[in-house]
Amino acid sequence: MARPKVVMVLANNFEDSEAIDPKNHLESLGAEVVTVGPERGQVQGKKGGTLEVEKSFAEVAPDEFDMLVIPGGGAPENLRIVDEAVDFTRRFVASGKPVGAICHGPQLLISADVLGGRTLTSVNKIRDDIRNAGGNYVDEELVVDDNLITSRTPKDLPRFNEALGKAVGLGTEAAMSGAAAGGQ
Amino acid sequence: MARPKVVMVLANNFEDSEAIDPKNHLESLGAEVVTVGPERGQVQGKKGGTLEVEKSFAEVAPDEFDMLVIPGGGAPENLRIVDEAVDFTRRFVASGKPVGAICHGPQLLISADVLGGRTLTSVNKIRDDIRNAGGNYVDEELVVDDNLITSRTPKDLPRFNEALGKAVGLGTEAAMSGAAAGGQ
Repeated sequence: MARPKVVMVLANNFEDSEAIDPKNHLESLGAEVVTVGPERGQVQGKKGGTLEVEKSFAEVAPDEFDMLVIPGGGAPENLRIVDEAVDFTRRFVASGKPVGAICHGPQLLISADVLGGRTLTSVNKIRDDIRNAGGNYVDEELVVDDNLITSRTPKDLPRFNEALGKAVGLGTEAAMSGAAAGGQ
Repeated sequence: MARPKVVMVLANNFEDSEAIDPKNHLESLGAEVVTVGPERGQVQGKKGGTLEVEKSFAEVAPDEFDMLVIPGGGAPENLRIVDEAVDFTRRFVASGKPVGAICHGPQLLISADVLGGRTLTSVNKIRDDIRNAGGNYVDEELVVDDNLITSRTPKDLPRFNEALGKAVGLGTEAAMSGAAAGGQ
């Protein structure tokens, strides 16, 4: 199959490991990961790391990508107030293609108004917001509901990463070894 | 009148100025401010300040206080997952006594399920969560809806502080000079 192309949405104050680990993992499996944000340029992680936003939302469309990944930290609340980010997310979820969100990542899904009737997890600090958005919050390491893949916190990254790889057709065997390299 | 007694709820990662400025302002007007949190002891501000939590939620009841103040930052999301904090907040709002919340402070009000039909403001990053909780979000420096007093960010502190003083009967004249001393 063609090399899977993944869009990771970023803004300042992203949770470092929740962006960098899935990016490295997916790339190690052979996927291309494109970082997208409100504007091109460097963004700061909340723990001091940096990543480059390669394209702005104005430069991309959902149909270019096979999967959307939303890391946590403070980035989702910075993205959820940007109309283009919310619109991109809404259209991506509606496409039926896989969407992975971890920790505070579902804040962007709440603002995209796509959680009605969906089952998901997140950091527990936003569980009431997920419920009020119509989502069914559960406290589990990994939740896969149709195209929606969610985890709670950085300690869930090995299983989250594995599920992301699988969702774009990158085999369990490769995914497992990647997850192991990620610290499982 | 008796000296007004104010409860300020705190946890780690509070927004420094949103806790310290209202505390200093209310004390300068003659109020007593008691800091309450999940447990006694020092808590860290997100910008490096520290405050002492004087009493735990287990040690206090809403009827001891004349007003509740909820500073923002990361503290509200740390409080909203603590049952005693949510229960205290719910009962305080129901009492009809004044409640002030700034920035991310309304996250605690969302979890206390007290925003149905109320008009309020907050940092814009949580506006969709307020709407999903049944609140009417408006983007204004200061919103007073019956007993609920809200502001958006630290730059709104002068008017927020003034409104808090007024809500516990501490005169506009004193409040205005306090607000001016706070940097207006």
